[in-house]
Amino acid sequence: MNLENEKNDKKETIVTPWQVKGDINYDKLIEDFGLSKIDDELLNRIKKHTGKLHYFLRRGIFFAHRDMNIILDEYEKGNKFFLYTGRAPSGYTHIGHLIPWLFTKWLQDKFNTELWFQFPDEEKFLMKRNLNLEQVQNMVYENMLDVIALGFDPKKTHFLIDTKHAGIMYPEAIKVAKRITFSTIKATFGFGNEQNIGAIFYTAMQAVPAFLPNVLEGTHRPCLIPHAVDQDPHFRISRDVIPRLGYYKPASIECIFLPGLGGITEQGKMSSSNEKSTIYTIDDKETVKRKINKYAFSGGRETVEKHRKLGGIPEIDVSYQWLTFFEEDDDKLKKIHDDYKDGRLLSGELKQILIDKLNNFLDEHQKKREKAKNRINDYIYKP
Amino acid sequence: MNLENEKNDKKETIVTPWQVKGDINYDKLIEDFGLSKIDDELLNRIKKHTGKLHYFLRRGIFFAHRDMNIILDEYEKGNKFFLYTGRAPSGYTHIGHLIPWLFTKWLQDKFNTELWFQFPDEEKFLMKRNLNLEQVQNMVYENMLDVIALGFDPKKTHFLIDTKHAGIMYPEAIKVAKRITFSTIKATFGFGNEQNIGAIFYTAMQAVPAFLPNVLEGTHRPCLIPHAVDQDPHFRISRDVIPRLGYYKPASIECIFLPGLGGITEQGKMSSSNEKSTIYTIDDKETVKRKINKYAFSGGRETVEKHRKLGGIPEIDVSYQWLTFFEEDDDKLKKIHDDYKDGRLLSGELKQILIDKLNNFLDEHQKKREKAKNRINDYIYKP
Repeated sequence: MNLENEKNDKKETIVTPWQVKGDINYDKLIEDFGLSKIDDELLNRIKKHTGKLHYFLRRGIFFAHRDMNIILDEYEKGNKFFLYTGRAPSGYTHIGHLIPWLFTKWLQDKFNTELWFQFPDEEKFLMKRNLNLEQVQNMVYENMLDVIALGFDPKKTHFLIDTKHAGIMYPEAIKVAKRITFSTIKATFGFGNEQNIGAIFYTAMQAVPAFLPNVLEGTHRPCLIPHAVDQDPHFRISRDVIPRLGYYKPASIECIFLPGLGGITEQGKMSSSNEKSTIYTIDDKETVKRKINKYAFSGGRETVEKHRKLGGIPEIDVSYQWLTFFEEDDDKLKKIHDDYKDGRLLSGELKQILIDKLNNFLDEHQKKREKAKNRINDYIYKP
Repeated sequence: MNLENEKNDKKETIVTPWQVKGDINYDKLIEDFGLSKIDDELLNRIKKHTGKLHYFLRRGIFFAHRDMNIILDEYEKGNKFFLYTGRAPSGYTHIGHLIPWLFTKWLQDKFNTELWFQFPDEEKFLMKRNLNLEQVQNMVYENMLDVIALGFDPKKTHFLIDTKHAGIMYPEAIKVAKRITFSTIKATFGFGNEQNIGAIFYTAMQAVPAFLPNVLEGTHRPCLIPHAVDQDPHFRISRDVIPRLGYYKPASIECIFLPGLGGITEQGKMSSSNEKSTIYTIDDKETVKRKINKYAFSGGRETVEKHRKLGGIPEIDVSYQWLTFFEEDDDKLKKIHDDYKDGRLLSGELKQILIDKLNNFLDEHQKKREKAKNRINDYIYKP
C-alpha cells in the first residue's frame, strides 16, 4: 500500500465513455482532450450571473470546459442557451451519477434555462453482451426517478428516451452520422472491427440532443452540456459535425469522477457493476453504513497511536474525498480536513461523518424519489 | 464492338446494393451468393397455388431464391407469409425498378397476402455525398406514386418510410445491429474505414421490415422478400440474425437486372443517374422514342442487306431483351425473336415494337400515377 499519492505515469490511463482505468491526472486529461481549464477569470464571469458559486466550481470538481465563454457571450446578448445532459441506463443510479445532475440543476435555476435530459437506452444494451432491452428499460424508469427527485423544473425539463423518441431523433442522427467515419470512431473510442454496428453508430444519437431543441422549436440557441469528463470523446466528435448542420458548436462544462469506495489510486470512476465500490441512491441506512465502514479506502494509520501522532492523509482517504462532493459547507469541510490531518479525527469517526451526511441526503432523496413515481409523465417530451 | 456475347471472366464483376459492374453471370452469382436456382420442381409447386405462372417465372427473370420451400410449407399448413420489398429513393423510378414490384403485385394477388413496402430514405442520403434529405424525400413521394399506380391493395399494403417510421423501426434495428460486426459489413459490402457510420449501420434498418409486422401485430409469420439480386447481401446478413431474435429466417425470391439501354455487355444494371441508360416512368412518348432509337444497343447488322442475310442477334439486342421483360405474350415474343434472328425484322422495326409497347404501358401507368396522388395516405402505415 503506497500512502504517497504519487503519479504513476507508466500505468496506462484510459478514459472513454465505457472505460475509465488507471490513475487519472486531470491536468493531463485537459491537455490530451484539448479542454480549457476553468480559471478564476471564468469563475468570476459566471459569478456575475449566479451570485455565490456552486461548491463544485469553488472546489474544482467541475474543472474544465469547452466554449463556456461563448455561452456567456450569447447569454449576455440575450440569446439564452439550453442545457443537455443524460444518463445511459444499465443499473441503478449511484451517488457518482448525481454529481453532474446536481450541478445541472443549479445551472437550470441560476440561468433559468431549459434542460434536455437524454436516456440513451440503447447505448449500454449495445455495449454489454448480456444486457437486454427490457432490463435497460426498467433502469430507465429507476434512473428517471432519481433525476426527478433532484427537483428539476418539469416545465423546463424534457426527457428524451432514445427508443421512445427515435421518431424525432433518428432522422437527425443520420445527418450527423453521414459526417463521421469509422476511422474517427476507431481512433476516438478504440473500437476494433469486431465492434457491433449499433455501437459504432451510437455516438450520432448522443449528438442529437445538442441541437434537437432548435429543430423542434425553430430556434437558434447554443447548447451547454454539463457532464463527467469521460463523455468528452462523444462531444469532441460531434462538435466538429454539428456546426456543419447549421447549429452552434455545443459547449461543455466537465467534472472529475467521484472515486469508487476502493480508493483513488485503485480505480478512476465508480462503477455501477461493482457493488463494493458503489453506493446506490436506493441503498438503506444500514447498507450505506456497512459499505462505507467495510470498503471505503482509508487514509488513516495502522494504529490509533500512530494516527494521533502522524495524522491521516485526507488526499487519499475516500471518506474525506466524498465529503468534498457532498459537504457543501466550506468551513465544516476545512475543519474535518484539518482535524483528520492532525490526528484529532480518527478514521472511524470520519467515516461516521460521511455515513450521516449520505444517509441524511439519501433519506430526503428517497422520499422525493417515491413522489417522483407519479410525475414521470410531466417530464417525458411529447413531440 | 464484340458481337459474340462471350463471358469475359477476367473483368471484375461486382454486385452489391450500391454497385453493379461488369458482365454478370447469374449462374455464378447463385454459387457465389449461396442461392438456390428456381427449378421446375419449385415452379410446379408454385403453380399449384397460383395457376398459370407469371411470365417472369416462366422466363427465368426471377431465377433464384432462398427458402421458398419453407414459405410454401408454411402456406400449405395455413400459416400465411407476408411480403416485404422496397425502394431506396434517390431519383425518379425507372422501368427497371418496376420488375420486382410487378412480380410482388402478382404474389400479393395470388397468395392474398400483406405487403410491407419500405422506402429507406436515409440509405442513398448516407451513400451519396451530394444528396440531401430533402431531395430524397421528394423522391419518396415520386416513387410512392409509381408503387401505388401498380395497383397494390391499400388494405393489405403498408408503406414504411425509415425517417417517418423510425419510432417503430430504430428500437428493432438496434437488436439486429448488436449482432452484426463491422468485420461482417466490411466483408459483405466492401466498405473501408472511411465509410460513414450511418451507412455502416444502415443494413440493420433494412432488416427490420422482415420481422416488424410480427412485432406490431403479435404474429409469428414468415416473410418473403421479392427483390433484385443486388439486394441479396443485406438479407444474407440479416438471415443469420433474425432467427436469433425469435422470428423466421426471411425467405427471398430474386430477379435479374433489366439491362441498361447501353447494353448487356456494357453494364449490368440500369442506373437512375445515367439518363442515357434509363427510361423513367414519367418520360413522355417522344422521350421514350428518342432514347430507344438513339441509345438502345442493337444486335442488328451494319447494313440492311447484311441484316436480311445474316439476321440479328436477339441475345445482345437491348430492345429484344426489354421485350422479354415487358411483352407478356409468349407467342408474340417468340415471333419477334424468330423474325429478328432470321433477318425479317429490322433493328428499327424491333425498336418501334418496344417503343409502342412501353408507351402503351406508360400511358396507362401515368394515368394511374396521377390518381395515386390522392391515395398516398391510404398506404402509409399508421402505428
